[in-house]
Amino acid sequence: MEPVANLGFAQVDLERRERCGFPEVIFCQGKANEWVGEVVRKLHEAGQDCLATRVSDEQAAFLGGHFPKAQQDRVARTFWLPAKAPTAKAGRVVVLTAGTSDLPVAREAVVTAEALGADVHLIADVGVAGIHRLLKHQKEFADADCIVVVAGMDGALPSVVGGLVDCPVIAVPTSVGYGAAFSGVAPLLTMLNSCAANVVVVNIDSGFKGGYVAALIARNARQP
Amino acid sequence: MEPVANLGFAQVDLERRERCGFPEVIFCQGKANEWVGEVVRKLHEAGQDCLATRVSDEQAAFLGGHFPKAQQDRVARTFWLPAKAPTAKAGRVVVLTAGTSDLPVAREAVVTAEALGADVHLIADVGVAGIHRLLKHQKEFADADCIVVVAGMDGALPSVVGGLVDCPVIAVPTSVGYGAAFSGVAPLLTMLNSCAANVVVVNIDSGFKGGYVAALIARNARQP
Amino acid sequence: MEPVANLGFAQVDLERRERCGFPEVIFCQGKANEWVGEVVRKLHEAGQDCLATRVSDEQAAFLGGHFPKAQQDRVARTFWLPAKAPTAKAGRVVVLTAGTSDLPVAREAVVTAEALGADVHLIADVGVAGIHRLLKHQKEFADADCIVVVAGMDGALPSVVGGLVDCPVIAVPTSVGYGAAFSGVAPLLTMLNSCAANVVVVNIDSGFKGGYVAALIARNARQP
Amino acid sequence: MEPVANLGFAQVDLERRERCGFPEVIFCQGKANEWVGEVVRKLHEAGQDCLATRVSDEQAAFLGGHFPKAQQDRVARTFWLPAKAPTAKAGRVVVLTAGTSDLPVAREAVVTAEALGADVHLIADVGVAGIHRLLKHQKEFADADCIVVVAGMDGALPSVVGGLVDCPVIAVPTSVGYGAAFSGVAPLLTMLNSCAANVVVVNIDSGFKGGYVAALIARNARQP
Amino acid sequence: MEPVANLGFAQVDLERRERCGFPEVIFCQGKANEWVGEVVRKLHEAGQDCLATRVSDEQAAFLGGHFPKAQQDRVARTFWLPAKAPTAKAGRVVVLTAGTSDLPVAREAVVTAEALGADVHLIADVGVAGIHRLLKHQKEFADADCIVVVAGMDGALPSVVGGLVDCPVIAVPTSVGYGAAFSGVAPLLTMLNSCAANVVVVNIDSGFKGGYVAALIARNARQP
Amino acid sequence: MEPVANLGFAQVDLERRERCGFPEVIFCQGKANEWVGEVVRKLHEAGQDCLATRVSDEQAAFLGGHFPKAQQDRVARTFWLPAKAPTAKAGRVVVLTAGTSDLPVAREAVVTAEALGADVHLIADVGVAGIHRLLKHQKEFADADCIVVVAGMDGALPSVVGGLVDCPVIAVPTSVGYGAAFSGVAPLLTMLNSCAANVVVVNIDSGFKGGYVAALIARNARQP
Amino acid sequence: MEPVANLGFAQVDLERRERCGFPEVIFCQGKANEWVGEVVRKLHEAGQDCLATRVSDEQAAFLGGHFPKAQQDRVARTFWLPAKAPTAKAGRVVVLTAGTSDLPVAREAVVTAEALGADVHLIADVGVAGIHRLLKHQKEFADADCIVVVAGMDGALPSVVGGLVDCPVIAVPTSVGYGAAFSGVAPLLTMLNSCAANVVVVNIDSGFKGGYVAALIARNARQP
Amino acid sequence: MEPVANLGFAQVDLERRERCGFPEVIFCQGKANEWVGEVVRKLHEAGQDCLATRVSDEQAAFLGGHFPKAQQDRVARTFWLPAKAPTAKAGRVVVLTAGTSDLPVAREAVVTAEALGADVHLIADVGVAGIHRLLKHQKEFADADCIVVVAGMDGALPSVVGGLVDCPVIAVPTSVGYGAAFSGVAPLLTMLNSCAANVVVVNIDSGFKGGYVAALIARNARQP
Repeated sequence: MEPVANLGFAQVDLERRERCGFPEVIFCQGKANEWVGEVVRKLHEAGQDCLATRVSDEQAAFLGGHFPKAQQDRVARTFWLPAKAPTAKAGRVVVLTAGTSDLPVAREAVVTAEALGADVHLIADVGVAGIHRLLKHQKEFADADCIVVVAGMDGALPSVVGGLVDCPVIAVPTSVGYGAAFSGVAPLLTMLNSCAANVVVVNIDSGFKGGYVAALIARNARQP
Repeated sequence: MEPVANLGFAQVDLERRERCGFPEVIFCQGKANEWVGEVVRKLHEAGQDCLATRVSDEQAAFLGGHFPKAQQDRVARTFWLPAKAPTAKAGRVVVLTAGTSDLPVAREAVVTAEALGADVHLIADVGVAGIHRLLKHQKEFADADCIVVVAGMDGALPSVVGGLVDCPVIAVPTSVGYGAAFSGVAPLLTMLNSCAANVVVVNIDSGFKGGYVAALIARNARQP
Repeated sequence: MEPVANLGFAQVDLERRERCGFPEVIFCQGKANEWVGEVVRKLHEAGQDCLATRVSDEQAAFLGGHFPKAQQDRVARTFWLPAKAPTAKAGRVVVLTAGTSDLPVAREAVVTAEALGADVHLIADVGVAGIHRLLKHQKEFADADCIVVVAGMDGALPSVVGGLVDCPVIAVPTSVGYGAAFSGVAPLLTMLNSCAANVVVVNIDSGFKGGYVAALIARNARQP
Repeated sequence: MEPVANLGFAQVDLERRERCGFPEVIFCQGKANEWVGEVVRKLHEAGQDCLATRVSDEQAAFLGGHFPKAQQDRVARTFWLPAKAPTAKAGRVVVLTAGTSDLPVAREAVVTAEALGADVHLIADVGVAGIHRLLKHQKEFADADCIVVVAGMDGALPSVVGGLVDCPVIAVPTSVGYGAAFSGVAPLLTMLNSCAANVVVVNIDSGFKGGYVAALIARNARQP
Repeated sequence: MEPVANLGFAQVDLERRERCGFPEVIFCQGKANEWVGEVVRKLHEAGQDCLATRVSDEQAAFLGGHFPKAQQDRVARTFWLPAKAPTAKAGRVVVLTAGTSDLPVAREAVVTAEALGADVHLIADVGVAGIHRLLKHQKEFADADCIVVVAGMDGALPSVVGGLVDCPVIAVPTSVGYGAAFSGVAPLLTMLNSCAANVVVVNIDSGFKGGYVAALIARNARQP
Repeated sequence: MEPVANLGFAQVDLERRERCGFPEVIFCQGKANEWVGEVVRKLHEAGQDCLATRVSDEQAAFLGGHFPKAQQDRVARTFWLPAKAPTAKAGRVVVLTAGTSDLPVAREAVVTAEALGADVHLIADVGVAGIHRLLKHQKEFADADCIVVVAGMDGALPSVVGGLVDCPVIAVPTSVGYGAAFSGVAPLLTMLNSCAANVVVVNIDSGFKGGYVAALIARNARQP
Repeated sequence: MEPVANLGFAQVDLERRERCGFPEVIFCQGKANEWVGEVVRKLHEAGQDCLATRVSDEQAAFLGGHFPKAQQDRVARTFWLPAKAPTAKAGRVVVLTAGTSDLPVAREAVVTAEALGADVHLIADVGVAGIHRLLKHQKEFADADCIVVVAGMDGALPSVVGGLVDCPVIAVPTSVGYGAAFSGVAPLLTMLNSCAANVVVVNIDSGFKGGYVAALIARNARQP
Repeated sequence: MEPVANLGFAQVDLERRERCGFPEVIFCQGKANEWVGEVVRKLHEAGQDCLATRVSDEQAAFLGGHFPKAQQDRVARTFWLPAKAPTAKAGRVVVLTAGTSDLPVAREAVVTAEALGADVHLIADVGVAGIHRLLKHQKEFADADCIVVVAGMDGALPSVVGGLVDCPVIAVPTSVGYGAAFSGVAPLLTMLNSCAANVVVVNIDSGFKGGYVAALIARNARQP
């Protein structure tokens, strides 16, 4: 197969699955419907799993018309068209949110991690102002290969979770909040400065990256 | 008495005790030794308590020579020359630090709150990455009229403490940390965005204001 | 009672009133109508006061349909459904605004402080460029247990007020203004650097926190 | 005369007095002693007044050796070598400081305004936390053609002064303070957002510009 | 007359003309039509000139219905209802713009300065990339008592103008531009750092303040 | 011919072609249709090429009605009305994009460089996460006189390209991305700090400047 | 054993090894020699591995005197006193640097990952401006369980590496560079916006966290 | 020859001259003397020109001892050890500075451009506040293939120069200034927003890049 499919407006990287373990993922924001549709078709024709993120309502309708078998999650704004039926899950990922408003970002993480083959468990609204809500889930944490913590505003949750577990914690800041939250800058800084040693960080609102790397870690942890 | 003592380089506000409940406090940073010394003398002669903060080593030596009875705390960088012997304590303040490096700022809060008459209890190094260290102090929190939480880096501690108590929590961000801590900006933003409803904030490294307002709150809470 | 009600998308903290003196308050921004409605119902069924903030027009209409007895303030964007008839007021809070445009934030503070049981007095448009407008209210300040000062643009009002009183002043910066006001950053910084020792700060536009903590302070100041 | 004197490392603008009403002023920061000395000599030989600012201790000693008749102010860090004896003062400038620490910047304003021929009156330490200290000087304000207000930290003073007078107010933010003062950014923003209509702003710590423009305004106000 | 008219939502400062030389100006952004209308009526009834800025299209229609004699400028977004017929002009102000897009801000300056009694001359689109466009207006500059320079993007124009004249230059940065113009931050910083000594600065897009202070300076310069 | 055409709202610089090698280009953002139309007409009547950028849909329709022969590119948002038929191309420019979303900015660069006479080759979507997509174009790079690299998000592409070629690389950051991309600040900083010595930078989203300077460099490189 | 050892200035968390898989690590910056020494002693007496980071020269000398068996790395500024002889390595970590100046941060990562039991391979100075330097190491990448990429200035290296491998990449921005590198902000933003899906980020200069999490990932990947 | 010389702490790129037209340049900041010395030796032994920048005084002394034939410029902080005697100059570069304090950065540009073979002419201190100083050099501009403009503070010079010439202008912001100059951020933003179409920008204080790219452009412009 050609390593790259040149569509003029895009060079579809058909070797990424071989190099990186998962095909190219389509970032839909700001792209014409036709551009997105063409890349989906090219990946699908090449027998590859096809995941798209940041799918607008308009793009979702367009893609739904052309690829009716795809799974679309409107809270997560994702499009998922697997190449074949799912196999057994490899590795365990827990996704936490500090608040209810963080759910869209958390759902993007869930869909992504599942696309990469992880067994994912989502626990919502366990922010630190009611610490007992969090502590009662400690057993579920012990079972995880990686934990994704999604939080806006003060972004304090990853530090507390990090101090309770021995697996990596991926912190995902969200743009939830107002004023000095500065669209996610506040929790981003909090997380980069986490006093827990096992916390790493991804971009604001990037449930995608949180889920992606968590699944990579979990998959490797369970592979012999 | 004249309401203001005009020293040329300073107008000492001799009515502040009447208006605000405590005399003018001297901020020493960037001032000549003589300037600081003159204001101390003027307040002392007017029969007022005299507190100075951000006292450099050089200023401390100078003031120590002229006012040998004053109490100086070199960790807190404070100078304290009370007008008369201390009276009974009014109100209870607890000061917490997330880490050991936050101690100088916390000590400034302690000295200030004591100068205003509070009974102060300091608990150091109870950051959220070891949450059990914090939770074992809950009984001491219940007793407090106000809690001052001093934290740098992720600044997550006030949110957790705020969710455990029913008194106001004054969060003091510190410049402890490096990189994306941005000299205290990270914990400042964390604290302003605290998910706990009872958390208010003061300037970076301002143990002075944290202790001052905590003592005001505590004093009022105990007055009939 | 269960300490936490798990609704899937939310873990309602039913013990917060016991721990913190007031039930969980619902932050509505960015949440689905149904999510908000369910949490209101759960709190109400548990016999708790129910306060919601940042209620959009659409959410207000939805909630109004389901909870017709609730009090909604469309300037403050609040929803208030008390568990039982109000009791006697405990403590006195004064809320000031620098300008007329600051009124929505100030109203949020008023509604919140009243929900917590405070006797609240609102004085609008007493900014420092006409200092005599402010000074003629000094008697009302003397009576307060806590003063909330709401100001945008230069944010200078709390420093002047702080120098006139002996109670804590909670400064609430607003996003009123344009250009270098930077959506509230300018008054936020002004307030954090206030030359008055009794000024503490909350997030930009957070009338909620200003009112909440003021009521806590006032309540404690009047309790024997 | 040549309009420009080319020294290789500098092109001395010998026509600026004709175009702008005052000769080129030397900004000494980061320049070699010899460079500064040569420009001074060139201006002096051309029969022009010579003012230098931001003169380091080392530069001051060097210049003092070569131009012993010059007046140097070590608080203001200025060097002043007038071409001829002073004439009658033209116009009245008042310079205020919020605190004692703002004095070096204020002194730079005073020296500069006097060099341009203004009659200058300096009042120190009248910050807004003790508003009565300010109000007792109102009569002096009424007499001014322009007022320069020098303030760090909250930078609130110009707004209050602006509301009391009918002449322009030039606000000079200083880098006095710590933490969220951000080396003068906080008062700079405060001043740019002043609610008083007659307040204009110059760079942080630029006593030079404050004094320069105040003297221009005052001079024009008194000229027939 | 009462010094302040208390409308509940506003305290109209009826003494500002006496103290500051011009009545209170109404900043309309974010205010209800009725609020603005009431303040206009109160000022007008008190026999005072009434200027309003940042008038939205909706507010303009509302005010036009109630005060048909007022002059409204839709480019400048101003409302002007003088108390009596205009008198002779006092002082000369020149307003320059760097580009055509800066005209709305410049028009606000023109309307404001004329309201304060200045004789105003507007010259548009003389940015520094075509320096000859600027230099051919030098004679008009010589005649001015104050020059207002309105510029976005690089904000370089005030520095060039400042070096050509001996009167104060008020620089008004605008939010014209994109990318690293950061909504006016770039020209704001340029202007604060101007290498010309006679340049002072006001808030981004504040044609109002530019025109106001220029008129004050011009008026004083022509008064005996 | 007059060097400047004064339209009141604009001073059209009719000598810029002589001074700078290309006529004044019209920046349409925020301008009235009529203003833009008049400047186009004036340039066209003066026998000059006329290029306009940042043309809104509404402006495009207006201009299309009056100048039906002009070439409009709706992806690039450009308007191009040459004075005469195109001549032979002078110099070779390659324009690269890191992603598909960068195409509008890249198209603006292409249209601009072609207007200045360059032979332009566009290669889209060769970002560094699939480095082989880039490396297979090395031969095309060797032929270029200047390369324009358009990239958002991490902005890493110019550094890699710069290390492969011996001509200047002009890096154009785009506002593509979200969160910590900060509307193009992230790639702007990346590019300013490029470890490749031949990389210079223009404003965020300024395909115009990228194309303009690339064409200048290419033109000079091919002229004897 | 007591879960916490209370030293007054510190609460040593003696259970962290059980909860998190590694004992508390001592951050030495800004702490007194005695404070650091006491915590080392307490951990060592409790039979725990003891790692300290950001050890100043003075602290290193002090600790070297009291714990002569410890291994100190003066480039990395680390102190390492293992509880017992090292066991077999678990998991493979590769640490890359973009430049030679990034070595101190990279060394901190190496020491930390080795302390956690990883087999670590360091490759220095393979920045993207000479991409062939990087590509020749691809075989070593294939063998890694996790790759730590340390880079300052443009921070472009992690994106290129991420596109070549199927394991997680931990990007560590450094404060190397000048000007618009803003002490590491530039590479931090680059890395947060990496176009490679497998890149996560830690704080500026935090070789410690990079090495810590890489070792966690590697250890888990090799455990059955 | 080996394309890369592996020194352990550095991978010297010995093919860069072939790929990019000039050998690898050594950035000395933060490197050990020995590291720098070894890379110089390796390049020199490979028969390549060797340029080093940001050479500290200590490094300069060390290198001077080992490579006595090298040319060191202590104002520019450069080290230059050419492989062979200079050949005829190729292309003309003009370097301008706005002020005298910008000279060190400008000298770095001069040394670098000369190392790449350009004929360089330096004109210092022609800032825009005395525009006639600049305009008298117009003839020298006409002769240039590229102009490097070095300016701090307001950074206005490149826009004026850009409007006078038809060659590319490379703007180099410097950290000269204080307060709101923000260590070069102010001129950086000014330059990125230049209203002249032919201005591109490099990092703050990067005389190196300014000179490097100017020489590339000039060299290509003169080659047949």
